[in-house]
Amino acid sequence: MIAGDGIGPEVVAEGLKVLDAVAGPDAFDKVTYDLGAERWLRTGEVLPESEMESLAQHDAILLGAVGAAPGDTRIPSGILERGLLLKLRFAFDHYVNLRPSKLYPGVPTPLAPHVTEGKLVDFVVVREGTEGLYAGNGGKLRTGTVHEVATEVSVNTAYGVERVVRFAFEHATTRRNKVTLVHKHNVLVNAGGLWRRVFESVAAEYPQVETDYLHIDAATIFMATDPARFDVLVTDNLFGDIITDLAGAVTGGIGLAASGNLNPSGAYPSMFEPVHGSAPDIAGQQKADPTAAILSVAMMLDHLGRPDEAAKIVAAVNADIAERGNKVRTTTEIGDAIVAKVS
Amino acid sequence: MIAGDGIGPEVVAEGLKVLDAVAGPDAFDKVTYDLGAERWLRTGEVLPESEMESLAQHDAILLGAVGAAPGDTRIPSGILERGLLLKLRFAFDHYVNLRPSKLYPGVPTPLAPHVTEGKLVDFVVVREGTEGLYAGNGGKLRTGTVHEVATEVSVNTAYGVERVVRFAFEHATTRRNKVTLVHKHNVLVNAGGLWRRVFESVAAEYPQVETDYLHIDAATIFMATDPARFDVLVTDNLFGDIITDLAGAVTGGIGLAASGNLNPSGAYPSMFEPVHGSAPDIAGQQKADPTAAILSVAMMLDHLGRPDEAAKIVAAVNADIAERGNKVRTTTEIGDAIVAKVS
Ligand SMILES: CC(C)[C@H](C(=O)O)[C@@H](O)C(=O)O
Ligand SMILES: CC(C)[C@H](C(=O)O)[C@@H](O)C(=O)O
Repeated sequence: MIAGDGIGPEVVAEGLKVLDAVAGPDAFDKVTYDLGAERWLRTGEVLPESEMESLAQHDAILLGAVGAAPGDTRIPSGILERGLLLKLRFAFDHYVNLRPSKLYPGVPTPLAPHVTEGKLVDFVVVREGTEGLYAGNGGKLRTGTVHEVATEVSVNTAYGVERVVRFAFEHATTRRNKVTLVHKHNVLVNAGGLWRRVFESVAAEYPQVETDYLHIDAATIFMATDPARFDVLVTDNLFGDIITDLAGAVTGGIGLAASGNLNPSGAYPSMFEPVHGSAPDIAGQQKADPTAAILSVAMMLDHLGRPDEAAKIVAAVNADIAERGNKVRTTTEIGDAIVAKVS
Repeated sequence: MIAGDGIGPEVVAEGLKVLDAVAGPDAFDKVTYDLGAERWLRTGEVLPESEMESLAQHDAILLGAVGAAPGDTRIPSGILERGLLLKLRFAFDHYVNLRPSKLYPGVPTPLAPHVTEGKLVDFVVVREGTEGLYAGNGGKLRTGTVHEVATEVSVNTAYGVERVVRFAFEHATTRRNKVTLVHKHNVLVNAGGLWRRVFESVAAEYPQVETDYLHIDAATIFMATDPARFDVLVTDNLFGDIITDLAGAVTGGIGLAASGNLNPSGAYPSMFEPVHGSAPDIAGQQKADPTAAILSVAMMLDHLGRPDEAAKIVAAVNADIAERGNKVRTTTEIGDAIVAKVS
């Protein structure tokens, strides 16, 4: 467990309560890693090699959130994100970042009733997690002068694209058999061409799966005007980052959005985390919704081959959401309510 | 005038009708350029050098939309976008892509009433137009094999970032004095670092302007949950592409979203175009809303130093939108209605 910063510890605590309630307190050996902004400020360490090696021995990682407060100038931008979160995703080859979104009845959404009423808004974004603009392949020249040049390189490989696209198609066969590729191939012709060709060749192996293509700009439009059109979306690392935050927002807030950083081969531990960030502005105030962290625990159980316990959590969350109404509850109260339903 | 493909010719025709009505039919010498998918299919030419030189002589360019139908495999992806639209933006140094969004009362929006009611949703995105991932600096290796590598390079310069950020701040002083920088500096540390430093140094010259920063993913959330928080947004080419389509969607559809590709120095003609694409699925059916094209004409008049005529068009569009209700009107009917109001 890496509880992390801001609201991370609060929401992870609730996730663990639910885990213990559903699987029993001794079902898992749990080890806590003290990583994140606080650790960095105290020790200057982001993620020592020894802890990395130790993390690699686990079956799964549950992460809360990492990241300094936006205004905190003591921590250079990107240090924690790249040195910890992205380092884990890359080193443990989390090539599938699985991010389901579902609009539950009664959950407040910023979308108008005519957009969602009577429709099933239930889709999952399969975001590539180990390539693209997240590869850290950029540089800068003449920094700080009027002649500065700064670059960022999106790196895409047939190997990397094929495995995540294949995962998306396979996953679609367990759902509604539709996959939408999201890219921008009319501008990013090299990367987009690769994604498109791989997509088409994998699609040929899944004749029962309907396919669709949207440019990322058009995808954001449909996310706001017709999210029910989506079943499985597959896209690169950056477009996936963008579209899943928007997806979280339109389906009732990222307080509900869980995610799994999967290494489907099992060579390394997969990592489960809420999509939301560390939200330092509300940290320590019992205001955060732990549902996303709790649903991340369910994804983790599923991944660890315990689908019945995962289903129990999902059912409890569904029931809790259905009863919510406009009640304002603390982080702990939401966790307790879900614990009561799984016990 | 480059009417282009799909619905381009239909909407440009209405734009010209309104232009003639407000400025008189002889106010401008108008030259039509036959460019786009049809031209390419007929001649294999995208934009011959001679036509490029001739276009450079004009005071302004009005463009409808270019782009082949998504399923049209005869035209390689990106040929028209990069050879025509982006070529003009780059060659004519359109470093400011100005994209205003306003939610007019009574216009249907996919957002729920609680998000927008009683609020002023009226902002403008200042999108950089000559750098970033649009620079065409990518490549590929071992194409079509399992070892393919495809890259895209985002190129950002202090020169390019500074001029567009400065424009944004200057523009904000004519509005509500707030500028939000949108980037992803926690991951794109090189480009994001440059944008951030330049933003902060220009901001220091505008103490009366309030500043804000959002990661692109968070910006899409706020676009859906609280668009009234925005006044001026400034961002790079790709993030600007994404956020303006979403902005168009939440403010009533991209049928209303106009844009200007500006070369503020006047060294080259600026280009005005609706944000929407060529929408081949509804082309030739009189279904397209020409309002975005008509508002693009207004932006053009403004740029050409004819603010009174521009204001007349904007007022006519406002009045027309206020009267719309649920009436379904043809492209021509909407144009006629606006012509009637400016005459
Ligand atoms: C914190 C940040 C590096 C991360 C990302 O960009 O992937 C986050 O936004 C996410 O979506 O998990
Ligand atoms: C057609 C395409 C190249 C273009 C862009 O990506 O800039 C369009 O989406 C736009 O926003 O004007």
